[in-house]
Amino acid sequence: MELSKFKHKCQVQVRTFDIDSQGIVHNSVYLKYLEIGRVEFRKSFGYKIRPDGTFNDGLRFVVVHNSIDYRSFAVLDDVLNIYTRVSWVKNSSFCFEQIIENDVTKKIICEGIGILVNLDKFKNEPSALDKKFLDELLQYDKEVAIIRD
Amino acid sequence: MELSKFKHKCQVQVRTFDIDSQGIVHNSVYLKYLEIGRVEFRKSFGYKIRPDGTFNDGLRFVVVHNSIDYRSFAVLDDVLNIYTRVSWVKNSSFCFEQIIENDVTKKIICEGIGILVNLDKFKNEPSALDKKFLDELLQYDKEVAIIRD
Amino acid sequence: MELSKFKHKCQVQVRTFDIDSQGIVHNSVYLKYLEIGRVEFRKSFGYKIRPDGTFNDGLRFVVVHNSIDYRSFAVLDDVLNIYTRVSWVKNSSFCFEQIIENDVTKKIICEGIGILVNLDKFKNEPSALDKKFLDELLQYDKEVAIIRD
Amino acid sequence: MELSKFKHKCQVQVRTFDIDSQGIVHNSVYLKYLEIGRVEFRKSFGYKIRPDGTFNDGLRFVVVHNSIDYRSFAVLDDVLNIYTRVSWVKNSSFCFEQIIENDVTKKIICEGIGILVNLDKFKNEPSALDKKFLDELLQYDKEVAIIRD
Repeated sequence: MELSKFKHKCQVQVRTFDIDSQGIVHNSVYLKYLEIGRVEFRKSFGYKIRPDGTFNDGLRFVVVHNSIDYRSFAVLDDVLNIYTRVSWVKNSSFCFEQIIENDVTKKIICEGIGILVNLDKFKNEPSALDKKFLDELLQYDKEVAIIRD
Repeated sequence: MELSKFKHKCQVQVRTFDIDSQGIVHNSVYLKYLEIGRVEFRKSFGYKIRPDGTFNDGLRFVVVHNSIDYRSFAVLDDVLNIYTRVSWVKNSSFCFEQIIENDVTKKIICEGIGILVNLDKFKNEPSALDKKFLDELLQYDKEVAIIRD
Repeated sequence: MELSKFKHKCQVQVRTFDIDSQGIVHNSVYLKYLEIGRVEFRKSFGYKIRPDGTFNDGLRFVVVHNSIDYRSFAVLDDVLNIYTRVSWVKNSSFCFEQIIENDVTKKIICEGIGILVNLDKFKNEPSALDKKFLDELLQYDKEVAIIRD
Repeated sequence: MELSKFKHKCQVQVRTFDIDSQGIVHNSVYLKYLEIGRVEFRKSFGYKIRPDGTFNDGLRFVVVHNSIDYRSFAVLDDVLNIYTRVSWVKNSSFCFEQIIENDVTKKIICEGIGILVNLDKFKNEPSALDKKFLDELLQYDKEVAIIRD
């Protein structure tokens, strides 16, 4: 992943309860950091999550794939930059690419991929992402790949 | 607790993974928020925690008591103010008083008490808090009660 | 608290992600262990929690107070016994007393108190606990104190 | 992944604090469940993790890659079977394959891959896995692929 492609950035600070007995951030905690980036990314478009976990435009995302490549360690008090972009959109799913770097040393801590699916509100079945979703993403970032079958 | 007595404040934002199935911050998560306040409080004196969990002035604290009174709910995206002070210091232990309020509505979310003990680095036994610790606290806040047997 | 008073026991094993940089269970994790005990206690009466966080008899509990006295450390792989009882019931609230002990050494790890309130399903206001709730508790444990104003 | 290839199984029960506002297990929690499987797998060979996070045979593993494919939802109180095997071993790294299934319905909940590296105790550099490690794995499961450059 190339950092220059990312337009959205937010920050998180490593806390005591994120650290394991090896003195480093526990591997599962990065999925929390990545989720912060994903939620803030979508909030930057003006949307927010309602108490039932759906977005206020009616979209309801569930994660169907996550992968993380851990490049380096993060330790207590580190300020981490979370870079987030959408790399592709299919009919009912889309893909986040993310990079976490140390804000001071600029060392890459990890790279993450997340694929989310939009689910129908009433049935637990994939539901097509609407044109508004696509248009907003493309207007924000022309590099988003629109993949149609 | 009176908010006017508190001089240290830091902030935290409620994240998706802090929320339970009732749509509110899970009761255990507040102990994490309170710990953020406690660590930031001590960092404001110039100290920091080393990879093994001890502070860089050699003090090693463990929590021997926690209590929380939950006054109201916090929900996703809420920005919370964490107010922290030390109310008393004994020979080897001291007490944090803390208030968490909603930054926008100023509603009190919860009040917390934490008692910590300084442990000897080599034996797991209480160890007297040194004069420097006391002096720094008193210089910062004259209201700290020094309790001697 | 006297261990002999407790009739409900369940177990939990300490996992890697429960451990902090000091090599011991993080102080906030015990609230999770105590919640396991509380949920299992109520499940032993035949109830279960629905996806929205309410119980299937319509009761909806929120925690209004938690306190823990930490007596000793728990470390990785420890099997812990969680003892749970209800000590008193008021009009719309009730109190859990709990003890966590090491299953092998029988050392007391911590003692916890939790006060829960039954909330109205539609309004966020305290709602009286019904006779069935009281009767079931008293039939299970005659020591439960019923406190009426 | 074929379930028939897996010889190691352990169980976990979904708890209230594992559930998010959508009423399902939060996507990050599965990395905790997978870690339980990985630790129990190695414990089945007679090893255990010391307070500093290293194993008692001197090996010190860090996770360099994790990926999860989420196939279905897990909800509160579900008992989950965690199946764990090592699929390959290279000079200083090895790969876990894992499947989590619902114990009652036998539905596959997710499949996970984890690549771990053995680090030198003193330097944070990859260190060759010894013959004992390889022999034990192969004796347990002839299907483990030994990959040599």
